[in-house]
Order: sequence, then C-alpha cells, then structure tokens
Amino acid sequence: MVENGLFVQGFRAAAVRSGIRGKDRLDLGLIVSDVPAVAAGVFTTSLVPAAPVILDRERVAGGRARAVLVNSGIANACTGAEGLGNARACSRLVAEALAIPEAEVLVTSTGVIGMQLDMHCFASGVPDAAGRLSAAGFDAVSRAMMTTDTVPKTAVRTLSVGGRPVRLLGLAKGAGMIMPNMATLLAFVVTDAAVAAAADLQVWLRAGADQSFNRITVDGDTSTNDTLLLLANGLAGNPPLAAASSDLPAFRAALDDLLHDLAMQVVADGEGATKLVTIAVRGAGSDDEATLAARTIANSALVKTAFFGEDANWGRIIAALGRSGARFNPEQVAIRFDDVLMVENGLTLGAAAEARATAILKQQRFTVGVDLKAGSGTAVYHTCDFSMDYVSINADYRS
Amino acid sequence: MVENGLFVQGFRAAAVRSGIRGKDRLDLGLIVSDVPAVAAGVFTTSLVPAAPVILDRERVAGGRARAVLVNSGIANACTGAEGLGNARACSRLVAEALAIPEAEVLVTSTGVIGMQLDMHCFASGVPDAAGRLSAAGFDAVSRAMMTTDTVPKTAVRTLSVGGRPVRLLGLAKGAGMIMPNMATLLAFVVTDAAVAAAADLQVWLRAGADQSFNRITVDGDTSTNDTLLLLANGLAGNPPLAAASSDLPAFRAALDDLLHDLAMQVVADGEGATKLVTIAVRGAGSDDEATLAARTIANSALVKTAFFGEDANWGRIIAALGRSGARFNPEQVAIRFDDVLMVENGLTLGAAAEARATAILKQQRFTVGVDLKAGSGTAVYHTCDFSMDYVSINADYRS
Repeated sequence: MVENGLFVQGFRAAAVRSGIRGKDRLDLGLIVSDVPAVAAGVFTTSLVPAAPVILDRERVAGGRARAVLVNSGIANACTGAEGLGNARACSRLVAEALAIPEAEVLVTSTGVIGMQLDMHCFASGVPDAAGRLSAAGFDAVSRAMMTTDTVPKTAVRTLSVGGRPVRLLGLAKGAGMIMPNMATLLAFVVTDAAVAAAADLQVWLRAGADQSFNRITVDGDTSTNDTLLLLANGLAGNPPLAAASSDLPAFRAALDDLLHDLAMQVVADGEGATKLVTIAVRGAGSDDEATLAARTIANSALVKTAFFGEDANWGRIIAALGRSGARFNPEQVAIRFDDVLMVENGLTLGAAAEARATAILKQQRFTVGVDLKAGSGTAVYHTCDFSMDYVSINADYRS
Repeated sequence: MVENGLFVQGFRAAAVRSGIRGKDRLDLGLIVSDVPAVAAGVFTTSLVPAAPVILDRERVAGGRARAVLVNSGIANACTGAEGLGNARACSRLVAEALAIPEAEVLVTSTGVIGMQLDMHCFASGVPDAAGRLSAAGFDAVSRAMMTTDTVPKTAVRTLSVGGRPVRLLGLAKGAGMIMPNMATLLAFVVTDAAVAAAADLQVWLRAGADQSFNRITVDGDTSTNDTLLLLANGLAGNPPLAAASSDLPAFRAALDDLLHDLAMQVVADGEGATKLVTIAVRGAGSDDEATLAARTIANSALVKTAFFGEDANWGRIIAALGRSGARFNPEQVAIRFDDVLMVENGLTLGAAAEARATAILKQQRFTVGVDLKAGSGTAVYHTCDFSMDYVSINADYRS
C-alpha cells in the first residue's frame, strides 16, 4: 500500500492483468492526471534507448503530459521500427480510451530486451485499466511494474507551498541492470504542485536524479529503458513555483528527498542483495575523482562478494581505488566501516580493529568511509552485496 | 609437469613448503639463471603497487637479473615501509644463498592484501629452495604460485634462431582480481635466447602483453601485484637478437604465442569459471572503440551470468554496447555465437536462430562476434562466465 493512503489531487491510477506475463499477474499500469500537467523526464544515456524512451524524450520536450502507461515483462528495447510503432500504438490506445491528445501520453516498458510487445494484451488491457482509475490505484501500479523486484517501491512527501498543502507521490521499479546514468530504470513522480515552466521542472528533476538515482549501482549495467518522469498538475492551487519562489528550496528538498528514498529502495532490493552499503569518499582531488573512486568500489565484484561474506577485506577496497583513476597517495588512505577506523595511512590498525569492523559488516546496512587525504572532493554511492542468488537470478532470468 | 620435460639451458628452479600457507603446501618458489640474464618486466598500472612491484620496477630498469623469488599466500601489498623492507630482505636472502648481487634478484608475491610477510618462513625457505634447484623444478614453482587457481599454468615453445635451438618456458598464476592493465597477475618467462639489449626485450614483452594478458578479464579488477617478467640468459648461443635480426619475427611470434597461451590458461581457470568466451568486435569506429565495446561486454555481470545460464540473451550484449562509449547505430548491429548469426540489423533472427545459438552456448568454449558496422576497428577480449562458485570463492576467500 502507498503509505497513509495519501492521494495527490487530480491524479488517478490503475493496474490490470493484461496477459503479457501470464493470466495471474498485474503487468499493465496507467497513471492519469485529470488536467494537463507540466512534465519533465530524465532518460538513459545508453546509445541503445528502448522504443518508449525514444518516444517519451520527444513528448517530454513538449513540456506537458496527462498519462503514463507502464508494462512489465517486455522492455520493447532493440525492437526496431516495429517496436517504435508498437510504442506509438500503445499511446494511441491510451489517448482513445481517455479522449485526450496522443501527444500527452507517455509510455514505458520494462522486462526482457529484444522481444516485441504482444499488442493484443494492450488492446484489451488499456481500456480495462482506463475504466478502473482511482486515487487508490497507485499501489497496484507499483506492483505491476515489478520484474525481479521482490517488493514494490513507493514514497510520498507533503509540504506547504504558499500556504497550500502540496503532495508528491513516487513509484519506482528496478533490481537488475542498475547503474543509472543520468536517469534510472523506471520511476514516476506525480505532484499537485503548480509549476510555472517545464524547463525549470526539468532542471530540478535532473539535479535530483544526479544525487539519487545516479548514485546507486547494483551491477554496473546501465539499462536501455531508464526513465524518470515527473508530472506536476497544479491542482494544489499554490502560486506557481519558479526559480525565484521563496518556497522553491522546500519543494526541491522534498523532491530530492523523495527521489533519494526511491533510489535507496531500488538498491536495497538489488538482485540477490542481502545488504545495503553506502560508499562515502572524501579527501579526493576533486568531486569527479571522488565519484570515480566511490563508483569503482561500489561496482567491484570482489568488494561486493566480500560484503556478502561479511569479510572486512579492506585490501580489495584499496585495490579498487588503485585502478579507479583517482589520484592519491596509498600511504595516506584511511578506511572506516561506520565509525570503526580500520585502516590508517594505508595500513591496517590490527586484529582488534578488524574484529570491530567485521561486526559492522554483519549489519544489514553500513557505510564504508574512505578518506584519500588528497584534497576536498567528496562523493557518495550506494550499492549492495553480490550473493549467490544474484547469479541464480541472472542465469535463469529468461527461462 | 611442464610439458615434455623441456628445459631451458642454464635455468634451474625449485619450490618448497616454507610455512606461509601451512605445513603441507608448496608456497615458495625460486627460479635462477646460471649466468646473468637480460631482463624485462611489465607491471600493474594500479596506483597501489605491491612492495615487490616497487622493488622489481627499479631493478628491471637495470636490464639484468639472475633470480626470481615467488611466494603465495600473502601479496605484500598495502604493507607500507615495513612491506618494502621485507621485500628487500627477501631479495637479500636469495642473494646470500646464491652468492649473487642483490640487485639481480627479483621478488614477487601473491595472496591476501594488507598482511605482512612472516620473515621466519623466508629465512628458512629461501636457503632450502636454493639447495634444491634443478632443471625439472619449474613444475613445482608453477604449483607453489597457485592461490585460488585450480590448475598450474605452464607453456613451452621452441624455435631455431641463427641455426641454434632456442627454448622458452613460461609460468603463470591467476584466477581472481584479473583484468590486467599493461601487465598480469604473476607470469614468468625464461629463455636461453641471446638478446642484444634489454630495451628491445622490454619493447617486445610489452607488445606481447598488450595482445595477451591485457586482453583477458575474469572480474574487471586490476591487481596490485600484476607482474610479468622475462629473463633471457643467452646460453643458446645464437647471434644476439636485435631489432634488425632476420630471426626476430620468429622469436617474437613464439613469445607472443606463449604469452597468449598462458593468458588463456588464466582466464579459463577464472574463479568459478565453467566457460571460456572470446568477445570479438569488428566494424567499430576505431580499434580503441572496439576495445571499449569488447571490454564492456567481457566485464558485464549480466552477460557473464547469462553465459553461466547458457542463455543466448543478446539483449544484455547490446545493452552493454550501449553504455560502452563506442559509437554505432543500434539498427545495424550483428551478433554471432561462433558461426551462428543470431542478430542482424539490431533485431533477432527468430526462434530457430536462437535455438542454434543456445546450442553453441552449451559448449565450454565459444566466441561472441559483434559487428558494429561503423568502421574498421577491431578488438578481441577473452572472458569467462560468472557462476555461483565465483561468489562462494570470494565470499570465503580469507576465511
């Protein structure tokens, strides 16, 4: 259930069993605004964008949207002209069912790459979903989006803007092929806030994505379908937010916090993951070098398997730093597990420190703190461990 | 056993149980040339080189060497001034036992990062090994080097240079922390060929490493200890090889072939590996872009787990290409598994082609051929699959 049954004024949703993934599974979701909303989107930087990404990029550039369709099971990626045609046909079905302009419909897909959508499922599923829209339907949509996810991912925030209550509601899916690059797998945020200009909303969304979804990794793989959409329909009646609004910092803080919440839910549900680990690097020559260092540690299969084994194998962390491209003096590096200092000046502090660090690693969540002592650059990444279940999930994914 | 009991004139070797890894395991090896040899070496590009790497880089620059000491169990990496002092002390023990200059001794270590060597093991083990040197001792050294390796790795080549028989013998170890960058984990090649100048030998060795050890990956992680050494003692009596020698192409072909043989043995014995997979990219905009594409596919956890699952999941291959940085048009990509064309113009050729590709994936060795159709750049990488055993080996490595 979406927490507290919170609803965002003028948004409704529904999910149905369309048959894409068998008869007994929610696999098609629809989110609709009663009025046209200001829209922003951030998409995969992969050179191989899925068909829905190609379509949505073009439509989001128009700055307005009213509906988002999502299906799981098939990604509609690497599907060529037929796939793009199917994405457009899906949007046409939504437009017809809702009697709205096709240009205001966004479509998203997630699942296996390289297969074509079965349009029969959409021909019946879209009108079915359109007939079931309700303010309580977001919970079902969050379930219909799931692929290898083990739990649905939702988040809500409320704040006051110009004296009016404003609500934000977010949904995300993702467990594998997760190292978003300027976007994420699939995440939708709807808000009843009024926003003056789509271009501003786009700036705020991209900045929020850079500090949330672009800071997580499950497996180092950037998806063909990464899509983050934000629709603001203005029904809260607040003075429209713009760059100079006094309430803008509060709105952006709520948005950033919600995006971060969703991103952490995605990485915590990483395929096979048993632990959520934050990699916090400071003292780098620049923020870019800190990011290189944090991302290299966060993606190292050797580091991630050591986390799974609850082994405070700091040598693998320093080895990852050594190939990361960040500049530093190995004889100055310090490493902490939460508040336990284990490595100082590049050397272990001994068996007692290692025992305390091992106790930290037995926790489900902890932070690896690295101080390169080479400057003032900082970066944070969030990753998970790498378990035997990761392999079994991905060896069998299509079977 | 080193194949055919081949010996290289004037080189002897031995391995002993020094106690670093318990009483019943070979863990210390020594290779010695009866006369000073021309020496070359290629080392890790990690910013965190192990102590033996720091020492050997300096000594190889002198162009001469007579002995190589190797221990497994402890990498002597991230060990600071004490570690560098221990590496020097090891070389001093070898120099004393053999009555040779300390500057002609190279030392190498492999194993756990961050622990100090137990010098008591070396104080007894080095003289012990020096007393057991024989032309047949290389097989024991190849076993003493092993860590998570499941098999020892050796290769020999013979050729004629200026009418004289010349022999090359190579040893390698490595199964994890393998994505050598300008070098490899530990590999030693000895030859009785006469070589005029160490600077030339260095050029030939680096070029050979670039096309062999620098083209393999097990886990995308570059070791702190990567070291490839080549010693040529001249006892074959051939006219010394130099850049203008008519026999140089044959010698370099034999050297390159031996290095490639060892590198393939390393990746085939990758931690947990059940398959050896060659990624061959052509049609890239440049060789550099082809290398980016091949390396990204070869390192993708999603691609490697699909290989383990014998799933011809070409969508993951295209997704990896999409984030690789190589430029191409997704609608032109072709993918083959061995000789089976499965994807053309970015689209699957259907169920029959997929069934044939799946049959190829059931083989222990196969090639994934990618044609980007964007230019004439080519690159080849060798990788292995990613199994549940990989995780269990690396979750438990230190325990």
